[in-house]
Amino acid sequence: MVDRQDIDAAAARIAPHVVRTPVMEVSGFGLPYAVEMKLEQVQHTGSFKARGAFNTLLSCDVPGAGLVAASGGNHGAAAAYAARALGHRAAIFVPEMAGPSKIALIERIGADLHVVPGEYANALQAAQAHEAETGAMQIHAYDSPATVAGQGTCLREWEDQGLVADTVLIAVGGGGLIAGALAWLRGARKVVAVEPETSCALNAALTAGEPVDVEVSGVAANALGARRIGRICFDLVREFDSPSVLVRDAAIIAAQRALWQERRQLVEPAGAAALAALMSGAYVPAPGERVAVLVCGGNIAPDPLG
Amino acid sequence: MVDRQDIDAAAARIAPHVVRTPVMEVSGFGLPYAVEMKLEQVQHTGSFKARGAFNTLLSCDVPGAGLVAASGGNHGAAAAYAARALGHRAAIFVPEMAGPSKIALIERIGADLHVVPGEYANALQAAQAHEAETGAMQIHAYDSPATVAGQGTCLREWEDQGLVADTVLIAVGGGGLIAGALAWLRGARKVVAVEPETSCALNAALTAGEPVDVEVSGVAANALGARRIGRICFDLVREFDSPSVLVRDAAIIAAQRALWQERRQLVEPAGAAALAALMSGAYVPAPGERVAVLVCGGNIAPDPLG
Repeated sequence: MVDRQDIDAAAARIAPHVVRTPVMEVSGFGLPYAVEMKLEQVQHTGSFKARGAFNTLLSCDVPGAGLVAASGGNHGAAAAYAARALGHRAAIFVPEMAGPSKIALIERIGADLHVVPGEYANALQAAQAHEAETGAMQIHAYDSPATVAGQGTCLREWEDQGLVADTVLIAVGGGGLIAGALAWLRGARKVVAVEPETSCALNAALTAGEPVDVEVSGVAANALGARRIGRICFDLVREFDSPSVLVRDAAIIAAQRALWQERRQLVEPAGAAALAALMSGAYVPAPGERVAVLVCGGNIAPDPLG
Repeated sequence: MVDRQDIDAAAARIAPHVVRTPVMEVSGFGLPYAVEMKLEQVQHTGSFKARGAFNTLLSCDVPGAGLVAASGGNHGAAAAYAARALGHRAAIFVPEMAGPSKIALIERIGADLHVVPGEYANALQAAQAHEAETGAMQIHAYDSPATVAGQGTCLREWEDQGLVADTVLIAVGGGGLIAGALAWLRGARKVVAVEPETSCALNAALTAGEPVDVEVSGVAANALGARRIGRICFDLVREFDSPSVLVRDAAIIAAQRALWQERRQLVEPAGAAALAALMSGAYVPAPGERVAVLVCGGNIAPDPLG
């Protein structure tokens, strides 16, 4: 459904519009081995989501009514940013649960913003109604081929920057980022899916044998709290047999604190979830296995300079 | 006094102990050109100072009484960290003006910490008394060849990472970092010295024709508030004719905010001062001149996760 050529094409398409985000290899975090990291929260609007949003808008004809997106915050901000950069209108439906920092972020970008009571699924429903009414184009937050191909450019870029790891840990919400990574890597490196215990749509789907609805809560819910895993992600995770691990909220907070105290990277809980899997022992590399952590989002609340 | 071979030797010496900090090229900040950045606040203890501290300790015989350092905070934290890593005792004299975040940072590392009322010069005096009493070894914050050679590894590393800029902007306090950069680059690239208007020991020295005492204050004073510029820095700045530019506190704060809002890098005011010179127009590159900004410190107060 998404292959390497799609990701090559996406990379060429979005290159003028996105940040080539920095990478590093560091020791610390109480771990007995070094970890490669990609600081994708440096991306426009503070998360990887700008990649998928630009790829979607640049690979189709956008109607005059513009685009519409439903988002826990990061996707909405990215869609609004990409729309503005490319001269399109954007209506963004944000669940109240996204919190004031992310809502303020979207307001700053200057989209037509609608705050919807409740969680992501409620915002999605409102966005779908808007789509039907106006003919605006829906940008799905994670489960469309153009979105997944855009997110896949992140791993493609990392390999171009010299990634050596055998294994890459990636936080999973709806699964767009990990789907892009799997579609790019196609088994060449192991990809570990990390979810909070309290928002684990992928893990529940793997147990059930198919995507199922889950309840979402916890410190990372406003970024990782998808009620149902994307089908593209689910199929790729099964195809490449990615391990699925869960982390507690306390482990996420400890990793978030360590990223700040040790490396001065202030990230949102979702951005620290992949590291939390290593620090908590939810994923333990085999002797000699080299690991990498994708730091995926930095839209912390409250905004420290808000 | 410090030549490229000294910096090569320093780099080899400190390599196992320091972070190879990430670099990136980004657009934004309201500037009509791209800027290369090195995120040196990712370094151990949140600033470049660990480089000079490790080089100093690794290039001499440390007495049993250990080391003593006077510091506005960042150098003290780095000296304490390097001493602990290498198994030495460390007494750190910190001016009260360093603020609770930096003092807490040093406490966390676990040094013998002395908070001295007043500014950097007062802490230096107390440290000198301790040195005379105990035989502990003084590590100067900026004006010693071993410190300057250590800081010089930052530019050496950046060139190894592919720096292309014609011009590098560097914030100046006592001048250790810029001295190291000048000693490494030796005129191969232009180096612009950036100081706050309210803490500008280098600019005052250039005007006076020799290092002179200045009053220090303002938002970056706890990192850049050296009362007198280092002699090594002063001589190198004159030898290579580095432009000296000044920035207002408001420009520093605007740059600090932009680094966070646009790139999710939360830095202390001193860490944003070099960028402030571009954003405020204190330094305007010539057409086609490629510029780089060294982001040098991230020990913000209050600590956002403190």
